Amino acid sequence: MNFSDMNITIVGLGMEGGSYAIAINHYIRPKNLFAIDINENILIAAEKLGVIQKGSTNPKDILPQSDLVIMCIYPSDIIAFIKDHMPLFKSGSIITDAAGVKRNIVNEIVMIIRDDLDFVPGHPMAGNEFKGFLYADQKIFYGNSYLITPTLKNKEESIKLIELMAKRFGCSKVYRTDIDTHDSMIAYASQLMHVIAVSIVNNENFSNDIDLFSGGSFKNATRVANINPDLWTDAFMQNSDNLINQITAFNNNMELMKKALVEKDADTIYQFLEKSRLRSNDYVNKFD
Amino acid sequence: MNFSDMNITIVGLGMEGGSYAIAINHYIRPKNLFAIDINENILIAAEKLGVIQKGSTNPKDILPQSDLVIMCIYPSDIIAFIKDHMPLFKSGSIITDAAGVKRNIVNEIVMIIRDDLDFVPGHPMAGNEFKGFLYADQKIFYGNSYLITPTLKNKEESIKLIELMAKRFGCSKVYRTDIDTHDSMIAYASQLMHVIAVSIVNNENFSNDIDLFSGGSFKNATRVANINPDLWTDAFMQNSDNLINQITAFNNNMELMKKALVEKDADTIYQFLEKSRLRSNDYVNKFD
Repeated sequence: MNFSDMNITIVGLGMEGGSYAIAINHYIRPKNLFAIDINENILIAAEKLGVIQKGSTNPKDILPQSDLVIMCIYPSDIIAFIKDHMPLFKSGSIITDAAGVKRNIVNEIVMIIRDDLDFVPGHPMAGNEFKGFLYADQKIFYGNSYLITPTLKNKEESIKLIELMAKRFGCSKVYRTDIDTHDSMIAYASQLMHVIAVSIVNNENFSNDIDLFSGGSFKNATRVANINPDLWTDAFMQNSDNLINQITAFNNNMELMKKALVEKDADTIYQFLEKSRLRSNDYVNKFD
Repeated sequence: MNFSDMNITIVGLGMEGGSYAIAINHYIRPKNLFAIDINENILIAAEKLGVIQKGSTNPKDILPQSDLVIMCIYPSDIIAFIKDHMPLFKSGSIITDAAGVKRNIVNEIVMIIRDDLDFVPGHPMAGNEFKGFLYADQKIFYGNSYLITPTLKNKEESIKLIELMAKRFGCSKVYRTDIDTHDSMIAYASQLMHVIAVSIVNNENFSNDIDLFSGGSFKNATRVANINPDLWTDAFMQNSDNLINQITAFNNNMELMKKALVEKDADTIYQFLEKSRLRSNDYVNKFD
């Protein structure tokens, strides 16, 4: 399949869906770019801006002509949308998504999907802290990784198509993994960072003048505290087992430091900091 | 007093002291810039590079001619240095420091200092994760705040001199506070961020490939995990009461989130995230 022969459809023209749309226009150039959204005003605006060729609030107008459908709605809405509109998808079409948690979605959809459709689960490590089409930005993909968790049913050529799209977007690395590894690693490397940022900001000492007392570490640690609460509540709930484990492991380290401070045990503190320094050194050298 | 008539001396020509030296050469232009360090090779190198006019491992060669002395050694060494070399300081000279914790140092030095000397405690919110003169960088001051915790003994003109220096360095804000507020706010806005970063990195899931699973939040939260363990162990120990309180308050928030996840209480999670979003929004709008 060639992008120039394909109609691509974005379902959900928010920040993430809008970013896909702009990036697809720049780097993919399909036959047509369509969008489905519940907000007709956004679709009209996106048409006028030349971001999409056609939009509709009614999937019937769009899905039967779509060769690739990219689901950019909240994780828990994706399953319902695919289930409810299953008969409308074009035979042979590919469906992918951008959900940040994968086990629930993938397990459910694999069970119910028609045999003539191919669902390739995807997760771009890209986003910003804002909500809505007006915050769409093709640059969110650049330099970030794009995770794909293929299923046993996937055709290799379908996976390759999504990988090609991600590479054209400028993603730093396109990486295949399984849904269990994905959800467990996301809980540590992404979701835990958000829980921490929020827990820092929701402190009685927080004030807008706080940078007076920090050389940049506070701003860095709390960048993601400006969070989309609908999206992340959903994502946390769908991955609660992994996230609970990660919070527990992290809190154990915090308690270890606290105990050493209470006991004035400078040696334990030093060893803990030195371990972190050695690990970080390798990490920084590798990626910066 | 005018900088062009003054001999300024840096005690401790490491990353921070070296950064002062370079910034002083660029923005202050004193009569002479001197340095005292235990490492003679560094002093010779700094002389050859034109960073200082003269260096010595022996404070007797330098202190009697110094109008302003900037203490850039570890917090716990500052008290000993001033005490041990008290007779050598030039009458009428000003002493300042760059230590990240203030109660111990200030209380001790105020008690012992000669009446003809003026100790103005300072703390630039500036630094990097490296150790040693070779990592000195005048840019560390730019855009960061410079805290001063005046004592009752200080002459206003001595405080103003340090403030002028900080402004010339390009510090975003020069701010006077008291030692208790300073140490309590530093525990939250700076030290806690370092304990968190270290506790994130010292996790069994950590690997050099971790950015595959993060859209930038991991790298931001762990930038300071590449820590100087000598310096920060000292700083944590000197402020352990405040830091213990901050770890406790932070851990309580983490436990609140964990409990909500265990109980599948989406409403509590949503409210907590929304509180953080509102606070962060104001903070970002103010400073970015």
